Amino acid sequence: MPRQLYELAAQADDHVFSPYCWRIRLALAHKGLDFESVPWRMTEKERLAFSGSERVPVLVDGNTTVVDSWEILNYLEQTYPEQPLGLSRAEVRFVRHWTEMVLHPGLSRMIVDEVFQTVHEKDRAYFRESREKLFGVPLEEFAANKEVKLEEFRRALSPLRATLEAHDFLGGSAPNVSDYLVFSGLMWARCTAPTPVLAPDDPVSRWRESMLDLYEGMARRAPCREAA
Amino acid sequence: MPRQLYELAAQADDHVFSPYCWRIRLALAHKGLDFESVPWRMTEKERLAFSGSERVPVLVDGNTTVVDSWEILNYLEQTYPEQPLGLSRAEVRFVRHWTEMVLHPGLSRMIVDEVFQTVHEKDRAYFRESREKLFGVPLEEFAANKEVKLEEFRRALSPLRATLEAHDFLGGSAPNVSDYLVFSGLMWARCTAPTPVLAPDDPVSRWRESMLDLYEGMARRAPCREAA
Repeated sequence: MPRQLYELAAQADDHVFSPYCWRIRLALAHKGLDFESVPWRMTEKERLAFSGSERVPVLVDGNTTVVDSWEILNYLEQTYPEQPLGLSRAEVRFVRHWTEMVLHPGLSRMIVDEVFQTVHEKDRAYFRESREKLFGVPLEEFAANKEVKLEEFRRALSPLRATLEAHDFLGGSAPNVSDYLVFSGLMWARCTAPTPVLAPDDPVSRWRESMLDLYEGMARRAPCREAA
Repeated sequence: MPRQLYELAAQADDHVFSPYCWRIRLALAHKGLDFESVPWRMTEKERLAFSGSERVPVLVDGNTTVVDSWEILNYLEQTYPEQPLGLSRAEVRFVRHWTEMVLHPGLSRMIVDEVFQTVHEKDRAYFRESREKLFGVPLEEFAANKEVKLEEFRRALSPLRATLEAHDFLGGSAPNVSDYLVFSGLMWARCTAPTPVLAPDDPVSRWRESMLDLYEGMARRAPCREAA
């Protein structure tokens, strides 16, 4: 059986947009490991029952099932140590937490209404209800004032920007898991929101272009909603 | 001639508080390199004329003079490669820029009035004038609303906190330059401000205690204004 990655998909099976799934896609490509994408929707909890998780990504690799994106990255690093992701260092964990605690929330409050437009139609009611419960306000209100938030978001990228002015990648001269973690956040935006979140002259944009080109343009060729 | 480190000092010669000087102190201790501290005040520009810089830290190591804290760290790493600081990785640079762009500004807007109280009396007029020009408002106004800012500051530490919940140090099981960069920011606060900026039960506090203990309690023994 081929290696399988259960991923959150939009209306189209190949329209994957979850940042937690994208980081696994990129890590698999980094290690040269083939996989079959298994499209999954938020309301299909029972299809993941075998894994013990209610969320993707879920990786099925031979007889092994691994859930949670960080666990999957660690599993891949231990099982396939060649082409290391560089995962063990505490500074990488800092990049991970910055991504999840600064980058993702900064994006969420700008794009969540577009994510709602992106999810499969059968997921929309669930998405709206679960997010509105979490945020305490309607999605559209949570995502309002995008212009102000866009400025704040770009300002919050300053440590990333300054790093990428000095290095080609967060991995240095070649990408490593730090790049995949951060870039996957930006793929979430690219795959769901028509308006680009980066200014074209931002050094972060230059790096994003390099990341889009990796592995024969894997990320660039993926379905997206960002206007060209 | 012994190795000399020009450092910003308060009224007392041994009361050093600049985060950019502290990171060098700690890097020297990490590598087991002795040095003589040369106390310097902001209004003594002419005493640094030999270096071509108007700021500390300035390191004089035999016939070599190095200015700028990042340059000094790189010089130390290249010249004394044993006990590596781990400086070359791009992720460390990310930690550096986060420290300078998030941690330091977050502290500055809470403690700058206390820094004013800390600097040598002959530096006070210069300090006030230069900072008020930079901020566009009186120091006391810039440092107002400390309670609100303290909450924001602690929230901004979330990626650091989450990392230190999983690792003893940013360097992993032992401190490296990432620890010195971040901790030196907290030493700036400890050495200048009576009110602690961390809650005692914060995992960041636990790590700070470990950092204070390093090298025979070098940082803990240093003069400070933080209330015990």
